[in-house]
Amino acid sequence: MDKIKTPHDSLTTLTNIVLPNETNHLNNMFGGELLARMDRACSIAARRHAQTKRVVTATVNQVDFKQPIPVGSIVKIEAKVSRAFRSSMEIIADTWVENPEIGERVLTNQGIYTFVAVDENNKPIEIPQIQPQSEIEKERYDAALRRRQLSLIMSKKLDPKDAIELRNFLFPTEIEK
Amino acid sequence: MDKIKTPHDSLTTLTNIVLPNETNHLNNMFGGELLARMDRACSIAARRHAQTKRVVTATVNQVDFKQPIPVGSIVKIEAKVSRAFRSSMEIIADTWVENPEIGERVLTNQGIYTFVAVDENNKPIEIPQIQPQSEIEKERYDAALRRRQLSLIMSKKLDPKDAIELRNFLFPTEIEK
Amino acid sequence: MDKIKTPHDSLTTLTNIVLPNETNHLNNMFGGELLARMDRACSIAARRHAQTKRVVTATVNQVDFKQPIPVGSIVKIEAKVSRAFRSSMEIIADTWVENPEIGERVLTNQGIYTFVAVDENNKPIEIPQIQPQSEIEKERYDAALRRRQLSLIMSKKLDPKDAIELRNFLFPTEIEK
Amino acid sequence: MDKIKTPHDSLTTLTNIVLPNETNHLNNMFGGELLARMDRACSIAARRHAQTKRVVTATVNQVDFKQPIPVGSIVKIEAKVSRAFRSSMEIIADTWVENPEIGERVLTNQGIYTFVAVDENNKPIEIPQIQPQSEIEKERYDAALRRRQLSLIMSKKLDPKDAIELRNFLFPTEIEK
Amino acid sequence: MDKIKTPHDSLTTLTNIVLPNETNHLNNMFGGELLARMDRACSIAARRHAQTKRVVTATVNQVDFKQPIPVGSIVKIEAKVSRAFRSSMEIIADTWVENPEIGERVLTNQGIYTFVAVDENNKPIEIPQIQPQSEIEKERYDAALRRRQLSLIMSKKLDPKDAIELRNFLFPTEIEK
Amino acid sequence: MDKIKTPHDSLTTLTNIVLPNETNHLNNMFGGELLARMDRACSIAARRHAQTKRVVTATVNQVDFKQPIPVGSIVKIEAKVSRAFRSSMEIIADTWVENPEIGERVLTNQGIYTFVAVDENNKPIEIPQIQPQSEIEKERYDAALRRRQLSLIMSKKLDPKDAIELRNFLFPTEIEK
Repeated sequence: MDKIKTPHDSLTTLTNIVLPNETNHLNNMFGGELLARMDRACSIAARRHAQTKRVVTATVNQVDFKQPIPVGSIVKIEAKVSRAFRSSMEIIADTWVENPEIGERVLTNQGIYTFVAVDENNKPIEIPQIQPQSEIEKERYDAALRRRQLSLIMSKKLDPKDAIELRNFLFPTEIEK
Repeated sequence: MDKIKTPHDSLTTLTNIVLPNETNHLNNMFGGELLARMDRACSIAARRHAQTKRVVTATVNQVDFKQPIPVGSIVKIEAKVSRAFRSSMEIIADTWVENPEIGERVLTNQGIYTFVAVDENNKPIEIPQIQPQSEIEKERYDAALRRRQLSLIMSKKLDPKDAIELRNFLFPTEIEK
Repeated sequence: MDKIKTPHDSLTTLTNIVLPNETNHLNNMFGGELLARMDRACSIAARRHAQTKRVVTATVNQVDFKQPIPVGSIVKIEAKVSRAFRSSMEIIADTWVENPEIGERVLTNQGIYTFVAVDENNKPIEIPQIQPQSEIEKERYDAALRRRQLSLIMSKKLDPKDAIELRNFLFPTEIEK
Repeated sequence: MDKIKTPHDSLTTLTNIVLPNETNHLNNMFGGELLARMDRACSIAARRHAQTKRVVTATVNQVDFKQPIPVGSIVKIEAKVSRAFRSSMEIIADTWVENPEIGERVLTNQGIYTFVAVDENNKPIEIPQIQPQSEIEKERYDAALRRRQLSLIMSKKLDPKDAIELRNFLFPTEIEK
Repeated sequence: MDKIKTPHDSLTTLTNIVLPNETNHLNNMFGGELLARMDRACSIAARRHAQTKRVVTATVNQVDFKQPIPVGSIVKIEAKVSRAFRSSMEIIADTWVENPEIGERVLTNQGIYTFVAVDENNKPIEIPQIQPQSEIEKERYDAALRRRQLSLIMSKKLDPKDAIELRNFLFPTEIEK
Repeated sequence: MDKIKTPHDSLTTLTNIVLPNETNHLNNMFGGELLARMDRACSIAARRHAQTKRVVTATVNQVDFKQPIPVGSIVKIEAKVSRAFRSSMEIIADTWVENPEIGERVLTNQGIYTFVAVDENNKPIEIPQIQPQSEIEKERYDAALRRRQLSLIMSKKLDPKDAIELRNFLFPTEIEK
């Protein structure tokens, strides 16, 4: 448990085709089916980071669906742990739709999930810490803290006064006051 | 399109059993499968409110998973539109796990989804407005606006200065300054 | 086990969309898939009435399929116990197809199932009795007895002479003789 | 359309294993899943008899579930048209559970379905007649008429007085009067 | 274990319809889904021959896909053990696509699988031998040996010099040298 | 179509968890389900190489299943085109089972598939050629030719005399004669 890990250590790639049963009557993928696929990829990334078999979805944060994904599309999900807390970790799943015919791929959405590592009695266990490497990994590492603060305020487990990073981010002009 | 509708007009109930394929190796429901089921219920509520066939998931907001749901459980999802904007609407899906043996049911989580009504070309169309009735419906109606402000700030479509309701909610002490 | 319950106590609502995999090559729902969905709803109603985890399908009675249900339809199943016998109960599942665009819904079929409550050794156990409340609940309560008589005659467990209610219903003119 | 066909011409065999997702929390097959499998087999038998692509489930008659079928079981369904009417046909699906270890198989239930052959506009079309061959096929052929009479009485399309075969079968002692 | 069995003793028929979820965006069956269905049929044939519950797929041999199979097609798989070795057996699954409208069926492909019978600890167990009856069964029985030799050479468990039947078959002119 | 591509250009990774419905009653993955997953990954690799939407499974070659894969396992499939012919291509799918707890992964099997690129009328179309880079890619490139020769001999489309590479590989001592 002493080793510092990197986001890349947990990188999980899930490439698959959109099947008819995952689509609505417009022949586009249901948002919910994509949420479920991303959850699957994130749970594997979480198991890889925490080096444990037992991880559970704790929270889903803001996920945006930017464009319809038609049946038969090649969808590639890349999930990576963005920040580890004591027993929970934030995982970001980037979703790309690929068009091999014209050699293009488009980022269609980004899901942010929180997983918790647990023992046999479903009690949280401690997990390894993480050290972001690339620029984007560092940005996501910082943003993960703000998201956690927001989540704790919402569930009344944190006094907004103590969420300094979140406030500075949301209302930067306030700082000058 | 002139009639004001109520949240109850869109109430959608989806009661079903947790099947083995929806569970992980701990025999508890995958978070992702529940997200997908809730998305299904929300899409029906959205179609009922917007009185249209074409609605698409736009955003998933904060969803918390409070406790594991074992295979074979009876899961009841109740989805209702909480607020309608011009062409998008927020839908809240309350999820209960029921134990008929002892006559108990427990609220295990709450999913907040945004759907958009679209035409055949996937362009947003106008939808009916909504009038909350009960106390809880009114609270959710107000909170929906703050969630929308937060979402618009995150995607840089709103200047934080203009998100008055959100700021007052998150950092109420700031107001006095 | 002393409390008399009502049909409404077991009311189970399952609203869902018809998925492509549930349809034939005419893009209409397979009869069999609807039978399976109704069985699922009925099993939950049975568990709610019997207040037990173990219920098994014993019989399916006459089910009529009145019209095709196209892919993407919103199907709402409402299942309620219509009559309780010693350890078996009859459950009726009314199935509606809804068209939110024009605000209409149509009763497409009605499934009548019998479930038995069992213990860990698969032996039948006693269940609470039921008291119909509305006019339609009373009619169904009476018809349930005739269906049971018919079923017992078919399996040679009842002498037709003793099926008075059934005979009066099927061949009322015989009574006068 | 002039050729008389036999029940054997439509014989359809569907042997498969019971998968985890088809079972309840007692690890036995859901009644509904078996109903759906039988419907699938019957629809193929109907297409084979009617020599058409378009057949739809019209009615499910009395189906009894005699014993639990555990996950992993080998289930063999044999469906055969038992009687053809003008555009509808009755199909009986016999279901066997097989235990290859001890070389035994047990008839666990029998499903009776009615299918209708239709054209592109969903209108009933005429189908070939059938000639039962074996003793059991003849019995089923006769019983099919009584089931049809019962079904027509139930839906008020037949005057009970005209259902001579059904009355003689259900209440044979009445005849002597 | 002393009884000699025939290929027909293990004959397993799986007739089913191609569902939308088994098809690609061209509405033809995925090769992989057919491989999975054939594996299912072969595993039942293997259990019937070995009279045991535990059989596992060991190898898939050459399988050719001759023509596209459209959604809604009736697919009939017939699996039969072609040769038994000590604890492994070869099973051949012939796949037919049927068109009841014109009364035709076409052999679309043939899958050759090897299964091994195992005990609770996953160790191979001895199985009954087999006696081919028909001409085609005898040909397949002989070819099974050559396929086994090829497989053993590939995995370096057999010296090519000892694969006499295979060499004579592949390079018959070599014999004369 | 003039650009030479490398195997890596088509690399497709599909990491996922083994679900209960993909397992037999021993709770190990069905061979057939793994075949289907590998087919899915190979079809994406083929589309990436051929830069077309329409590819169909033509052949499955020797696939070995080395060890059971229990439910809940993390299975990672890596598919890459190993050799391109005129309109067909061979794709190899390496399958790993990963145990994050102890940081180990095991190669459990290797599937070899042939896909063909087709046009709207299902006619084969020409595809880009491939240039193997690494040592293992070169070995697989050579072996692909021998597998193709074997396949052509089996279907009597090639005279064994002309399959020089295959003969040299299978029966190298013959060369000296």
